[in-house]
Amino acid sequence: MPAFSRFTPLISALPATVPFVGPEAIERNRGLAVKARIGANENGFGPSPLAIEAMCAAAGETWKYADPENFELKQALASHLGCAADNIAIGEGVDSLLGLVVRMVIDPGLPVVTSFGAYPTFNFHVAGHGGRLVTVPYLDDRENLEGLLEAVRRENAPLVYFANPDNPMGSWWDADNIVAFARALPESCLMILDEAYCETGPADATPAISALIDQPNVIRTRTFSKAYGMAGSRVGYAISTPGTAQAFDKIRNHFGMNRIGVAAALAALKDQAYLSQVIDRIRDSRERIARVAESNGLKPLPSATNFVAIDCGRDGAHARSIVDGLMEHGVFIRMPGVAPLNRCIRISTGPESDMVFLEEALPKVLKNL
Amino acid sequence: MPAFSRFTPLISALPATVPFVGPEAIERNRGLAVKARIGANENGFGPSPLAIEAMCAAAGETWKYADPENFELKQALASHLGCAADNIAIGEGVDSLLGLVVRMVIDPGLPVVTSFGAYPTFNFHVAGHGGRLVTVPYLDDRENLEGLLEAVRRENAPLVYFANPDNPMGSWWDADNIVAFARALPESCLMILDEAYCETGPADATPAISALIDQPNVIRTRTFSKAYGMAGSRVGYAISTPGTAQAFDKIRNHFGMNRIGVAAALAALKDQAYLSQVIDRIRDSRERIARVAESNGLKPLPSATNFVAIDCGRDGAHARSIVDGLMEHGVFIRMPGVAPLNRCIRISTGPESDMVFLEEALPKVLKNL
Repeated sequence: MPAFSRFTPLISALPATVPFVGPEAIERNRGLAVKARIGANENGFGPSPLAIEAMCAAAGETWKYADPENFELKQALASHLGCAADNIAIGEGVDSLLGLVVRMVIDPGLPVVTSFGAYPTFNFHVAGHGGRLVTVPYLDDRENLEGLLEAVRRENAPLVYFANPDNPMGSWWDADNIVAFARALPESCLMILDEAYCETGPADATPAISALIDQPNVIRTRTFSKAYGMAGSRVGYAISTPGTAQAFDKIRNHFGMNRIGVAAALAALKDQAYLSQVIDRIRDSRERIARVAESNGLKPLPSATNFVAIDCGRDGAHARSIVDGLMEHGVFIRMPGVAPLNRCIRISTGPESDMVFLEEALPKVLKNL
Repeated sequence: MPAFSRFTPLISALPATVPFVGPEAIERNRGLAVKARIGANENGFGPSPLAIEAMCAAAGETWKYADPENFELKQALASHLGCAADNIAIGEGVDSLLGLVVRMVIDPGLPVVTSFGAYPTFNFHVAGHGGRLVTVPYLDDRENLEGLLEAVRRENAPLVYFANPDNPMGSWWDADNIVAFARALPESCLMILDEAYCETGPADATPAISALIDQPNVIRTRTFSKAYGMAGSRVGYAISTPGTAQAFDKIRNHFGMNRIGVAAALAALKDQAYLSQVIDRIRDSRERIARVAESNGLKPLPSATNFVAIDCGRDGAHARSIVDGLMEHGVFIRMPGVAPLNRCIRISTGPESDMVFLEEALPKVLKNL
């Protein structure tokens, strides 16, 4: 397959295959239909009806680009969060923002600290910019704050990534620990605090906005993809000092936001009552998943997210056979990628019908192993 | 405004201000309301009703990420274009794809050839990756193919950008000239052939897909933002050899596409009858704009796009005063950024009501100068 002969050395060296397999690809490749889509930490409870209404209303306006300054959405988020609009940068989902942050900080060869088995898309961006991943093992299924800090210091790393609550394990640290970690970081190291799951965790797991807002080396990322139920809308945002936030403007795709997604985010943000209901449903669904796991002899781990990691008690091959077996029954789930996390499977919360499919399929799968 | 202290030297050196001012920002900053939005080469005739229907239908599905492989859309485009799905890469608008291509090819200091006064967003991406812009003046308001080729050879440039039909001048070359240019390019130079406006030009201005599909150093970019009337949906695509197309997978934001936009693009693509009608309306509107210009003593240039560049006969300051003056009447237009192109203003086609606003405002503005 002839390709252009003069891509940069970095691009030429990157693998052509990438570790992203969506449920649609599984359906196509295996000839199976997904009945319960509870693998990608999407939110089957869906967005606020007001957001859906806003999407339809905005459909007729899609001939216009969105406002490249994202003025309204930044204002609304600032008001919601209790910070200034200048503290916020908007992007096409957190994935896009993560890519920009890596690009801002990483020249080829520079070290980037993250946990071993943490978010693969972040690692993808690090590789794409030639960074050198320095990984720290999880400790008791939580990201190891002391270990991450030690690695940053040892390597003089300019970038560390940390998710709280964590994906893929669902674990979390209290706000005090997070703030202490941020304070202890050398100012020459930028911390990405990925809070994609902050809405579904205990209140005391999320630092107050004011706690970190003055620290130029902290960027907190949040999204409308999880609790707000709008993964397909591609709206994420970053919170940092105005000076740090402004760096996004230097390289971001200014006209990258889709107009309907922005309208939906504005409407969803206004409907906090709906969000509260969904968070309750997510908590109930977590408990339901935990009961299903326990009644099948598996061990659910505590979770502050919209998914539950379940310890299946053996190795990655065993967990993989459960993931594959469930898919045979139309139940799409995922699992962590590396040991020892990969003794677990990871099941996203979802509506009753999804839970019924899971409840029916899991014992059959386990029996067949 | 304190910022993180250790951004890369490249990022630190980039300007914090960027040359993108949307109509919403003009409204906010000048306290004016846009009545005729005919400045950003959007398409006020709007998308197919089937696309709008598809957007509403997809709204309830926004809790799901879009298929990261964009399988369906690639299949549909391949079928429409008469190539293979492997020849296509999908992105969040052409702007996003342009950024990726620059990243694939440009290490800091490498030369990038483009026309002086061509697409600013491309230049933004070149600057963002540290490329060195080598510009060639327009010749008789067309991009200078011979001059571009000569610059590529002289500089041993790995990348050349060329839009056909052209923005901001609306001019074009015949397909034969484009193909001859591509054939004459050194294989060590990647050509971006930006065909954002191909649907609105004469048929013989666009090379057949088959004419360039085997050339690994050609990437053609197209969009649903212009003739298809979906600028706010953020759906663009690139056409190249499978080997070159695959390079996008190494670095693109795999889950970056918004689900509603993809659904809308699929529906719009099916409604070619509507597209034909819109293209007719765009042609009529071009003629209308030309008549308005002429009746005010200005000289419209021939256009193959959804806008008309109008020679106002003097310098950039004069054209700027017309742009600013029209905005006082709620008529948002733009103008080329550099001399000698900036003797012109640039007015996008649009529905009758927009044309009426323009027709009424222009003589008043000219009289007041």
